[in-house]
Amino acid sequence: MAEECVPVIRYEELPEGPVVVLLDQTRLPVEEAELVCTDVPALVEAICSLAVRGAPVLGIAGGYGVALAAARGFDVADAAEQLAHARPTAVNLAYGARRVEAVYREALRAGAGEAGAAAQALAEARALHREDAEASERMAEYGSALLADLVPGGGMRVLTHCNTGRLVSGGGGTALAVVKAVHRAGELRRLWVGETRPLLQGARLTAYEAAEAGMAYSVLTDGAAGSLFAAGEVDAVVVGADRIAADGSVANKVGTYSLAVLAGHHGVPFVVVAPVTTVDLATESGGDIEVEQRAAHEVTEGLWGRSPGSRMGSGGGPALAPVGAHAYNPAFDVTPSALVTAVVTDEGVASPVTAAGIAELCSTSRKRVSRSANGMMKS
Amino acid sequence: MAEECVPVIRYEELPEGPVVVLLDQTRLPVEEAELVCTDVPALVEAICSLAVRGAPVLGIAGGYGVALAAARGFDVADAAEQLAHARPTAVNLAYGARRVEAVYREALRAGAGEAGAAAQALAEARALHREDAEASERMAEYGSALLADLVPGGGMRVLTHCNTGRLVSGGGGTALAVVKAVHRAGELRRLWVGETRPLLQGARLTAYEAAEAGMAYSVLTDGAAGSLFAAGEVDAVVVGADRIAADGSVANKVGTYSLAVLAGHHGVPFVVVAPVTTVDLATESGGDIEVEQRAAHEVTEGLWGRSPGSRMGSGGGPALAPVGAHAYNPAFDVTPSALVTAVVTDEGVASPVTAAGIAELCSTSRKRVSRSANGMMKS
Repeated sequence: MAEECVPVIRYEELPEGPVVVLLDQTRLPVEEAELVCTDVPALVEAICSLAVRGAPVLGIAGGYGVALAAARGFDVADAAEQLAHARPTAVNLAYGARRVEAVYREALRAGAGEAGAAAQALAEARALHREDAEASERMAEYGSALLADLVPGGGMRVLTHCNTGRLVSGGGGTALAVVKAVHRAGELRRLWVGETRPLLQGARLTAYEAAEAGMAYSVLTDGAAGSLFAAGEVDAVVVGADRIAADGSVANKVGTYSLAVLAGHHGVPFVVVAPVTTVDLATESGGDIEVEQRAAHEVTEGLWGRSPGSRMGSGGGPALAPVGAHAYNPAFDVTPSALVTAVVTDEGVASPVTAAGIAELCSTSRKRVSRSANGMMKS
Repeated sequence: MAEECVPVIRYEELPEGPVVVLLDQTRLPVEEAELVCTDVPALVEAICSLAVRGAPVLGIAGGYGVALAAARGFDVADAAEQLAHARPTAVNLAYGARRVEAVYREALRAGAGEAGAAAQALAEARALHREDAEASERMAEYGSALLADLVPGGGMRVLTHCNTGRLVSGGGGTALAVVKAVHRAGELRRLWVGETRPLLQGARLTAYEAAEAGMAYSVLTDGAAGSLFAAGEVDAVVVGADRIAADGSVANKVGTYSLAVLAGHHGVPFVVVAPVTTVDLATESGGDIEVEQRAAHEVTEGLWGRSPGSRMGSGGGPALAPVGAHAYNPAFDVTPSALVTAVVTDEGVASPVTAAGIAELCSTSRKRVSRSANGMMKS
């Protein structure tokens, strides 16, 4: 990411005391506004209002939130509890908060004192942030190498969906980190950005990141992708994942499956990029993934209310459908592994995508984690 | 269509003089407002602002406009000229205006006098309106019979795209007229309404017509259709057409092709409904159809500006993408005949869809037109 970008999240130790500063994503792309959180309730509110969103960055927010509570002398257990439950299904949020809380408690038990324990908590939160950035870098490296193989000759036109870049991550992100690596290598001819209805994370956030990185990009409605494939204008589809089942089926933002079927129909590679932590071996197959249905107003109302200060997606926007219209509004869809050319993770690539290949990536990951845990114990 | 519906277009002979009354489609679904046009400039303005839109109904508007000019003693040739060019690519508009103008001139030449010629012009415009309604009825009949064959057992779940109902027609419309006939027969379990980005004719207009007709319906984002197919929730796709090439390729609202590929992948019938006048034998194949690229702001800005009186799609809406974002915004896409199960017209059905089948429908149509012309000469 370029030096001049507004960071998505940072922990600052100001003379007035420590703060967590967030780029307010509900204001993008209209304005780059930062939210300064001086306590945990402010951070929880920012999480609930989607000012900060995306699994990996929520984990970092949870970690910094606990570090903030420790540094400012608030109740650390209570802070971790509040953060862990700020959004019901965000596993990473709870993971980040609990991990930093555990370090704080252990330090207290070991006699570090409150200030010492707070310093160790912050170090752990920063480590979490750094690990996430490193995972992004590995995915970008593996993914861009894979694309160079899949689309020889360079000058690729890549189609992506939703937002999977630095806005959801401690680093460059997942799928969009791969695209950025291709761009840095001078091999990206164009990024096709699917707008990603209903909440338009493509048009609002991926386009913002593409512009920031200086890519040639075009925004399109989700329905317009078909004509791009038909015209031979797509060399590869690169998307993220919300969850990957043991059989390699991929749950991702709604609209992904249509792109996978189109890619299959036109013989275009379809690549999924996600950290190995996205794999859920307890979920056997795609059919076992429960799909969350979201509120109708995301589909039936405009994103913004008519008052200039209204928050995105909070309801009260102009009617786009008759009053009382029912909406079918699943949050994501499931793409079977047969339509996925490759799954790129921070631990390597599975291609073709099989249950054995997915299991192998997870076992590599477990070895790395156990090595890292040994390292921690020694230090 | 139910008696209590606000008609999409009507010619009224009020004590104050004749008027053309339009249902203002830019206000739908928020309010049912009528625009009363007392002269041709008002009607032209209504056409330009998309208060009335859709090929067949534009032909009727052109016809009534010329009849209005004749009845009010305006320059009929000038009125026909203005109407014919109100929108550049609307062939039906020019057809309706020229057809009624020709009858008016012929009547004058035959000595009918201005009032007599105006009466004949109005009769011709009403005939045009009636013919369109009759064509809708025939399409509804052929199409619903076909669907009963394709989806035996009743209780169908039909997916449609864009708006193809009474709002674009002098009658019930094309694809949506078929769905309404299925509904009247008690055989419709649910209508899935694709919202149809960028201008949301599905969410705004088709949902309005579905609610009006008392159908069970759900609105969905265009990207959500894939998960419906995967869940086995779609029994048939029924859409309209902007143009049909001699080889049976179908140009229709952007997003149609993705649905056709999904339908093919899942073995679901994909049915196109359009008057036989939509067939353009001069266009050999789908590749010969030129696709209009539309303004970026349809994709990159919200449909409505922040002021309550702003018109839909006129620009000035809230930014949905970064300032200066490029948008790929084709008006339609092309579906090859191999993906089309059947083409339903007012002259019958072609299935499978072949060049010979399409030619046969057109030849039936020419025979009917020549019979009808003989009938006119005799009467």
